[in-house]
Amino acid sequence: MLYTKLFPKTLRKIPKNAQVISHRFLVQAGYISQLSSGIWSLLPLGWRVYKKIENIIRQEMNTLGAQEVFLPSLIPKELWQETRRWGTMDPPLFKLIDRHNKWYGLGSTHEEVITDLIRKFIKSYTDLPLALYQIQNKFRNEMRPTGGLLRTKEFVMKDLYSFHKSEDSLEKFYQKVYQSYKRIYRRCGLNVVAVEALSGSIGGTFSHEFMALAESGEDKILYCPKCGWGMNVEVGRNIKLCPKCGTKLEFKNSIEVGHIFKLGTNYSKKMGAYFMDKDGKKKLIIMGCYGIGLQRLLATIVEVNHDEQGIIWPKNVSPFDIHLVGLNLKNKSVDIFAKSIYTKLEKKGFDVLYDDRDESPGVKLKDADLIGIPIRLLVSKKTKKKIEYKERKNKKAKLLTFNQVINYLK
Amino acid sequence: MLYTKLFPKTLRKIPKNAQVISHRFLVQAGYISQLSSGIWSLLPLGWRVYKKIENIIRQEMNTLGAQEVFLPSLIPKELWQETRRWGTMDPPLFKLIDRHNKWYGLGSTHEEVITDLIRKFIKSYTDLPLALYQIQNKFRNEMRPTGGLLRTKEFVMKDLYSFHKSEDSLEKFYQKVYQSYKRIYRRCGLNVVAVEALSGSIGGTFSHEFMALAESGEDKILYCPKCGWGMNVEVGRNIKLCPKCGTKLEFKNSIEVGHIFKLGTNYSKKMGAYFMDKDGKKKLIIMGCYGIGLQRLLATIVEVNHDEQGIIWPKNVSPFDIHLVGLNLKNKSVDIFAKSIYTKLEKKGFDVLYDDRDESPGVKLKDADLIGIPIRLLVSKKTKKKIEYKERKNKKAKLLTFNQVINYLK
Repeated sequence: MLYTKLFPKTLRKIPKNAQVISHRFLVQAGYISQLSSGIWSLLPLGWRVYKKIENIIRQEMNTLGAQEVFLPSLIPKELWQETRRWGTMDPPLFKLIDRHNKWYGLGSTHEEVITDLIRKFIKSYTDLPLALYQIQNKFRNEMRPTGGLLRTKEFVMKDLYSFHKSEDSLEKFYQKVYQSYKRIYRRCGLNVVAVEALSGSIGGTFSHEFMALAESGEDKILYCPKCGWGMNVEVGRNIKLCPKCGTKLEFKNSIEVGHIFKLGTNYSKKMGAYFMDKDGKKKLIIMGCYGIGLQRLLATIVEVNHDEQGIIWPKNVSPFDIHLVGLNLKNKSVDIFAKSIYTKLEKKGFDVLYDDRDESPGVKLKDADLIGIPIRLLVSKKTKKKIEYKERKNKKAKLLTFNQVINYLK
Repeated sequence: MLYTKLFPKTLRKIPKNAQVISHRFLVQAGYISQLSSGIWSLLPLGWRVYKKIENIIRQEMNTLGAQEVFLPSLIPKELWQETRRWGTMDPPLFKLIDRHNKWYGLGSTHEEVITDLIRKFIKSYTDLPLALYQIQNKFRNEMRPTGGLLRTKEFVMKDLYSFHKSEDSLEKFYQKVYQSYKRIYRRCGLNVVAVEALSGSIGGTFSHEFMALAESGEDKILYCPKCGWGMNVEVGRNIKLCPKCGTKLEFKNSIEVGHIFKLGTNYSKKMGAYFMDKDGKKKLIIMGCYGIGLQRLLATIVEVNHDEQGIIWPKNVSPFDIHLVGLNLKNKSVDIFAKSIYTKLEKKGFDVLYDDRDESPGVKLKDADLIGIPIRLLVSKKTKKKIEYKERKNKKAKLLTFNQVINYLK
């Protein structure tokens, strides 16, 4: 893509109230734009990163054997009342009324809707186990949206739900999801600590949070610097030493980028979701649920992958593979050479952002650092028929031929 | 995918209040499930079709050079007030209030949000033309949701917006979108008539609706049976003969599956969206907008592609490429043969739904017809080492070897 065509360009101005670095860089580089407090648009660059993350998550969900669905946001009051969450969700539901005076809560989570589906369709133990997921908007009436995309009123969540005939089956699937989540974060370039946690409004018997260590995080965890074990401070109030290796635990701030729950029969009991077991007895379906907020994950990747100049995207989630910078483009032979490099790279299947603007070298290099694509190629009068190759995370650049560049990219 | 694993199975019962055939078949075959009046979940089969349609639309939008974004559903009251649509939208907005007493309208269309973005970022004529689109939920406070997915309170829309410095530039892009829409419908297996139409709540100077001819349609159009010309009856009240070929016009019922608008400066004037032109003068940005409702398009495809037994999916939007039916699976050699066919087809890159249930031939064949995948392969005691090949739309079946099947599929 030509940078002259990309909407919008980088902003010089640092956004007001940007308390965390992801907020600042994502706005300045043109990934996101704020509509209102806690309400954001994803712009073309942000959408590209979002889609990369979404695809990684979708692949991992499909690998688990989960089937994708798409559930409504308008959820009738009566369903929330069955689980007694109409008035008790924290943060509260956004509530609204239609022209026939019927009330709805906007989906902040979908246990009610999915349990309603299940009680309609699941009859027998032969229908279990089953896993369904969706990637869909969530709405939360937050008191204080903060940190750009970190805490918002509206965001996309991947929510996976699993249904079992036994605790044992739930436990096995829970462990599979646990491993799947670790793969998702690894593929997104994030190190996470999985900590035992409280279940909050979702309820259930047991849960794990996946925490990315970051100074800007709002969640304190107990963390073992030796073996990486961790625990939510509210769960592990009196623990001083790591139960795994005996090392003294430290307090760390972190960002929650995923939460998985053993719900047990919490929802199936309240909503009457049964199956007929092999022994001919009617039994409650045992459930698990597993969530990842996508925009928060995107912002967290920036929180832990940046320097003072801008973002440093991990390869798998970068909006483009390569940032090609053309300097001295008024020189016709440089212009032609740069364009030919752009075309050849695209033909070889690389996604290239080509900065073809009539701007100073300073502006172009600063923008490349801010935008944060992991590979920067530069062509100018000075490079002649060679290309300057530089990785965003390194200071050093190399002068290479086109074929050498291709070898490096592989 | 194994049919025994698919959620959910077909339903014997015809849904109550199913006035149109797409409602009935989509529910019975397990594509969709109703949560409340005008509020539907897409189940795994439905989601697969939805995704095929979405991908076709996304490809065509990208071919136009449009850039994808993702805009919020929570739109502050103040923005709707700028265009005087807070109280005048038809159907009305769903309105809600947050815990700080701030009002929002749930996005039923996004002209306000996109114009707000544009006035923030567009400065100069060099930023134009520009086209942005999103594929995002829409909410409409409908009086009478009808026809299953045809008219709902919540659905996904592809909305494209274009921005221009001249009427001429808008006209050129409008024509490109017009052709793009025709390609989208063709790829989805739909014939449409593009008719001049009224602009309704969206406003603007000129619009076309894309109408699929179907008896269940709610929209009457004037239609020329000879040349395919058409017009909205409210626009063409006094026209009796086709202005293109002079043939007597007929009334036809149809379903609107897309609407494109020349907005002109309607929104940019109300919201103050300007650009600096080459001549140094500040001018209003000229706009177009272009929408397709995805679930309605999905249902319309069923309205025009079915028989008495069920759906007949056009190839490009079918949830699977092949429906493989195994009969007499208790016979071990048939079972092994059927499984081997399933595995080999998947390896060759075909998406196969394999009915591996322990059910009667009658049930399996009926379900295959209901679900409507265009190719049915059948393996039984009778077919021995051959495979019965049948297209959903044809009555005749052929007995083929595996290699012959592969040749047919190509």
